Amino acid sequence: MKVSPHPISTEVVKELKQIVGEEWVVTKKELTSSYLYDQTPEPVRPTASDNVIVVKPKDAKSVSQILIMANKHKIPVFPRGGGTGLVGGCIPTASGIVLSLERMKNISIDRENLFAEVEAGVTLGELIEAVEKVGLFFPPHPGDEGAQLGGLIACNAGGARAVKTGVMRNYVKGVEVVLPTGEILTLGGKLLKNNLGYDLMQLIIGSEGTLGIITKAWVRLSPKQLFYATLIIPFNHREKALKIAPKILQSGISPLAIEYVERELVEQTAKELNLNWPCGEGLHQLIIILEESSEEALLQHCEKLLTLSKEYEALEPIIAERSEEQKQILKIRSEIGLILLKDTIDILDISVPPSALSSLIEEAEKLAQMIGLKIALLGHAGDGNIHLHILKTEGSNIQKRYEEYKTKIYQKAIEFGGTITGEHGIGCIKKPYFVQFVDENTLKVMKAIKRLFDPNNILNPGKILP
Amino acid sequence: MKVSPHPISTEVVKELKQIVGEEWVVTKKELTSSYLYDQTPEPVRPTASDNVIVVKPKDAKSVSQILIMANKHKIPVFPRGGGTGLVGGCIPTASGIVLSLERMKNISIDRENLFAEVEAGVTLGELIEAVEKVGLFFPPHPGDEGAQLGGLIACNAGGARAVKTGVMRNYVKGVEVVLPTGEILTLGGKLLKNNLGYDLMQLIIGSEGTLGIITKAWVRLSPKQLFYATLIIPFNHREKALKIAPKILQSGISPLAIEYVERELVEQTAKELNLNWPCGEGLHQLIIILEESSEEALLQHCEKLLTLSKEYEALEPIIAERSEEQKQILKIRSEIGLILLKDTIDILDISVPPSALSSLIEEAEKLAQMIGLKIALLGHAGDGNIHLHILKTEGSNIQKRYEEYKTKIYQKAIEFGGTITGEHGIGCIKKPYFVQFVDENTLKVMKAIKRLFDPNNILNPGKILP
Repeated sequence: MKVSPHPISTEVVKELKQIVGEEWVVTKKELTSSYLYDQTPEPVRPTASDNVIVVKPKDAKSVSQILIMANKHKIPVFPRGGGTGLVGGCIPTASGIVLSLERMKNISIDRENLFAEVEAGVTLGELIEAVEKVGLFFPPHPGDEGAQLGGLIACNAGGARAVKTGVMRNYVKGVEVVLPTGEILTLGGKLLKNNLGYDLMQLIIGSEGTLGIITKAWVRLSPKQLFYATLIIPFNHREKALKIAPKILQSGISPLAIEYVERELVEQTAKELNLNWPCGEGLHQLIIILEESSEEALLQHCEKLLTLSKEYEALEPIIAERSEEQKQILKIRSEIGLILLKDTIDILDISVPPSALSSLIEEAEKLAQMIGLKIALLGHAGDGNIHLHILKTEGSNIQKRYEEYKTKIYQKAIEFGGTITGEHGIGCIKKPYFVQFVDENTLKVMKAIKRLFDPNNILNPGKILP
Repeated sequence: MKVSPHPISTEVVKELKQIVGEEWVVTKKELTSSYLYDQTPEPVRPTASDNVIVVKPKDAKSVSQILIMANKHKIPVFPRGGGTGLVGGCIPTASGIVLSLERMKNISIDRENLFAEVEAGVTLGELIEAVEKVGLFFPPHPGDEGAQLGGLIACNAGGARAVKTGVMRNYVKGVEVVLPTGEILTLGGKLLKNNLGYDLMQLIIGSEGTLGIITKAWVRLSPKQLFYATLIIPFNHREKALKIAPKILQSGISPLAIEYVERELVEQTAKELNLNWPCGEGLHQLIIILEESSEEALLQHCEKLLTLSKEYEALEPIIAERSEEQKQILKIRSEIGLILLKDTIDILDISVPPSALSSLIEEAEKLAQMIGLKIALLGHAGDGNIHLHILKTEGSNIQKRYEEYKTKIYQKAIEFGGTITGEHGIGCIKKPYFVQFVDENTLKVMKAIKRLFDPNNILNPGKILP
């Protein structure tokens, strides 16, 4: 990492300290270093500038003042949530300000309207805890519980429960957002219906911190469902496991999650966590979570699922009904990605129409053999959203082979009516592929929108758009 | 209506005929007259220009050619769907082209992926029929069944079932849209997760035909639920009827619809339709539709609902289980607005956080008494979305009183955290109030977006934005 002189003048540092208070402006390298990276696999991760200053505002007004100042001096600002992204979306790739929302922690729950008003720095884990404490439920589970709400919304996070709940966008009904030029907008609110002109909030959701900084949001809650079961259904053939997923949805069962895992991988993950994976059968397994409003409905859907499984040559399934047991299964499932990370070159996040998933994965395997690469698969089978880990491989021309693989499998995904990113977003590392596969007129409009919101290109510059 | 010479040159008519074919360019006044208005109450309806030509393209390419030509000659283009709007959104208020999508009627159902690919001119009724024919279900019911898909998406229609399903936006996963400058974009597709850059589709949804013309869409379907019940729960006190609505949602029952009606009005509507309204009790009634995946769940939720109703002093409820009976109740409910139309000055479409609905309506009544106006109420109590009909009243200064009423009740709605339009949109007639109540920075961004998409302001000019 090249060390160059700090580009932010002492005058700017002084101004920042006036805005947020001296203790919330961090300039020492040993203290800023943990703000430079996210969970993007190291081999494809862009290098962070080491000329950054970390600023921690406490409210929208301070964020606005920082952005106005940054605009005046044309200083890049990199908004940062929990740093759990996988595409380098928050990495400060140029010298500038890392704007961490970690101090914005207020949660206020409105039980009457089933809404939570949540500040950007609240983590998913904290939201879940606060909501469950009052007997309510936040239906989606958009990924890592260390992720912060601002980031989850900015990246329109998805996660396993999206089969039933849909992605983050479905639960956000209002945001407070600070535009790069400093205006604070409140869009929407505790409203289930709102057609007040163009829905700018929807444009902000998923813009990965390039159009505005979300400082607060109003998210919809629901009463807690009391009846859950988690099933692990093993298969000898991957094709059967993947082909049953759309059939489950067609049958009228609406599971919270339909996750695909490979047994070897999930057992290895369990071992590393000192836990036990309860299902030793089959090479390929589906983890299915049912959530129902009555015990009868739960039983009925369980039975329906088991009958359907037999038709698809499933082996003996495991049904977990105790809460602790279900939690443990999910813990292991959610750690697979992290455990794989050390052997991973890149994580692809392809999404296709659900019934095409099986064919896509067949192509992914064929391509890997042809090019001589190892891959590992896990993903949201119910959504048609698969995470394909390209694993570290030895050999000649390896960098070129990685690139060849990605381009070819993305090409296949597009042929199947799919997209190169279902939930991880573009950030830095998917930009070259995004540019390759997006229609040029669509890209032109996106660039114009970025210029409209951020004329000096100060907000998360270099992310999404080339 | 002022008659002035037709502003579209014979050269332009010739070009249009070359694009869509001679028979699909309509210039005769007796044939264009039915394309001038929608269902906006006559007293507030803007006057249409009588210098319009109606053009009926058959695909996105023709739409693109028309828009390119319109841009060249700076001719306004007014996209038109089923003409069921209530805010004058499709009325050609200047001379120009009415672009009717009525010929674009293809529907293709993908049972494997639970998706329908639908062209813009397909009506809601046609979609429902096609989907049910193959044993599937289109969950939302966003209003009048004569509305066309393009319009439903452009206006982000809501409707009664939004309590459970949410609005149109939730079911649209892809659109083909023609920009005012002629580019044809395909955004999204049969995808449940898609984070490919800025979600331009979300910006198009709800833009009321001012940013692009939707020509095709991919909407999500679901398997048909088999168990339905419709309950009519009568109350002597309006407050009780409205206050129970959020309690139902809090209790874990998730009805498809919670509609508020006034008995006198609904009985009058039934009479005009030569039908019988099955519930003669109470002054105020809730119509609640339950949809469950099992009979047990249906019974259980019915019972829970009845217990809760007693706590809120409900009178004897009616439970309709036979499909015919349920359909008739809904038919009567859905005709109230139309029956009222002849006595209506304007329909307000206020949306507030659900628990504030009761207080809002109290204010609405008080204000009406104070100003000396008659109002009628019906609406989506579960959503906090009420349709307040201001009825024709005699007396002095009546126009001024209508205006005073609207401004004051909108002010109240905003105070309660609400919005002046939950589902009808802005169109022409809500513009003055929109401008009054929207934040000026938000409006500035909306205007800039309109300029970006439509530099010559040819597409549905004068709608939404001042």
